[in-house]
Amino acid sequence: MSADIIPLRPRETAPSLGPMMTLTASGMNAVNAVILDRMQSEIPLIPALAGHLIAGGGKRMRPMLTLAGAALCDYHGTRHHKLAAAVEFIHTATLLHDDVVDGSEMRRGKAAANLVFGNPATVLVGDFLFTRSFELMVEDGSLKVLKILSGASSVISEGEVDQLIAARQIETSEERYLTIIGAKTAALFAAATRIAAVVAERGEAEERALEDYGRNLGIAFQLVDDAMDYDSASDEMGKGRGDDFREGKMTLPVILAYARGNEDERAFWRAAIAGHRTTDADLSHAITLIHRHDAVGATRDRARHFAQRAIDAIAGFPASEAHAAMAEAAEFAVTRRA
Amino acid sequence: MSADIIPLRPRETAPSLGPMMTLTASGMNAVNAVILDRMQSEIPLIPALAGHLIAGGGKRMRPMLTLAGAALCDYHGTRHHKLAAAVEFIHTATLLHDDVVDGSEMRRGKAAANLVFGNPATVLVGDFLFTRSFELMVEDGSLKVLKILSGASSVISEGEVDQLIAARQIETSEERYLTIIGAKTAALFAAATRIAAVVAERGEAEERALEDYGRNLGIAFQLVDDAMDYDSASDEMGKGRGDDFREGKMTLPVILAYARGNEDERAFWRAAIAGHRTTDADLSHAITLIHRHDAVGATRDRARHFAQRAIDAIAGFPASEAHAAMAEAAEFAVTRRA
Repeated sequence: MSADIIPLRPRETAPSLGPMMTLTASGMNAVNAVILDRMQSEIPLIPALAGHLIAGGGKRMRPMLTLAGAALCDYHGTRHHKLAAAVEFIHTATLLHDDVVDGSEMRRGKAAANLVFGNPATVLVGDFLFTRSFELMVEDGSLKVLKILSGASSVISEGEVDQLIAARQIETSEERYLTIIGAKTAALFAAATRIAAVVAERGEAEERALEDYGRNLGIAFQLVDDAMDYDSASDEMGKGRGDDFREGKMTLPVILAYARGNEDERAFWRAAIAGHRTTDADLSHAITLIHRHDAVGATRDRARHFAQRAIDAIAGFPASEAHAAMAEAAEFAVTRRA
Repeated sequence: MSADIIPLRPRETAPSLGPMMTLTASGMNAVNAVILDRMQSEIPLIPALAGHLIAGGGKRMRPMLTLAGAALCDYHGTRHHKLAAAVEFIHTATLLHDDVVDGSEMRRGKAAANLVFGNPATVLVGDFLFTRSFELMVEDGSLKVLKILSGASSVISEGEVDQLIAARQIETSEERYLTIIGAKTAALFAAATRIAAVVAERGEAEERALEDYGRNLGIAFQLVDDAMDYDSASDEMGKGRGDDFREGKMTLPVILAYARGNEDERAFWRAAIAGHRTTDADLSHAITLIHRHDAVGATRDRARHFAQRAIDAIAGFPASEAHAAMAEAAEFAVTRRA
């Protein structure tokens, strides 16, 4: 690997996913075709429910990252299309089960699948998509890819359980929080980018570089998602604003506001996280406290740290359109607003 | 394959799983060790919840069938231990999700995991076990086994969705019912036995023979399970008696009682399956109607047909302890009582 370090720096226009979307546009058409094809079933409820979420948009960050990683590795085959679809199916299955677990009402700006189709069907269609993702991997036939993605899936489900346990636990530390988002979010980002290097047969060092890029990017994304739940009128992910607050999730803005707060403030947080402060006025007060201690700003600063680590992880790859797009995606992860 | 056809015939003692349990006893110790080892996690809730169900017993039919199939194929390695554990994890994950979907109260004679640990944790630990099953398969490294078990998993989840849709649908036909149990139950039995022939490298004909044995045995087992929900004081599976009735499940005893009933009886069934007849008196009346039309007996007769097909499917294998045990297991499937 040569050394073309691309630092985070001010630019004339706001960082965006545009370059990565341009880079991966034709590949994503192929991925989307696989997704649409493989979510079909003779049971019409399955594509109806899966399609409700999948057609609902989302950035398809994870498959796009697999494609960008493959471009970074100068890979010109097509194996990564099926694998990127498999990654998106794992993600979609996780979202469906999350929505059941959280009792979500909104997802990607629409009524959540569990509200439209009920919890039972949502659980089972999540299972279906998960099994389809493994069928896609088996068709590809790489045991190395299967190991990476089955390992990531296992880590994700452990992270989800861990998050469930930590909910409404006011004493959750920043370290514990980072462990949870490392598992529930960053593990799939890391796997999505690592498999690009595997498919391109680039060797262990490049595999690790791409994995490190993905893991750090995933942490940055989740940090900013969690920040946006307290600083935006309506979250770009389409979740309802204040969902985390009402579910008693110990995300970093709350952890920091609690740590930095006085005794009165801590008493409020204890009651809120325990589920005794759930009105709009309570949410407003929470946002006031979070901003009093700059907890959203601090969360974004933490995200910037991980985004820089992501950029540095792939610094050894030569300059290319893919390299620039991946660096800008990391900047976008930090700077995006609702 | 030579021809030692072992027909269903009267025997002096009731058929049992005893010979299969003896045959597989030491192998099952190894399988149980893998199960206990691989359900561990740093998140204590995971082994606690998984262990609640797994330690709760159950016959471990599916892993036992993998081991018996391997013995039938004269396989003397150990690869099938991990794979049998993977099969049991898929089954356990399915049970956990089923209990959430059905709102079960009892499983294997104990309070169902969803009642003890809540739906969210039960969904997520199901996911965890499912991912662990794939990790075990990936460690084994056979793409052929991965294809068989990921395909079966996909079929199972389709079958579960199909069953959910058919619930409370009085017009469900016997054909539709057979399609559903073929997917939700028999697919995993078929995969469990087929992979034994794969591990033993016995070739396509033996693979198919074992798959056909497993599929037909699975159908027979499910038919008798469904019969026992209407003919026993308390189901040996530890489900609450009458669960199927209260959930409006269109199992074969109901399908036949409805088809054979007069207009008054059909009106009762329509109301009951729609959820308007759920008292103990309603259940008693349902059982009366089912027995008036010998719908439990007819269901057991159907099971006998599939059990015989299972026995005939492996008729080409030479006589052996495994062969006799597998034939007796098929007889047991049909004759067992609660």
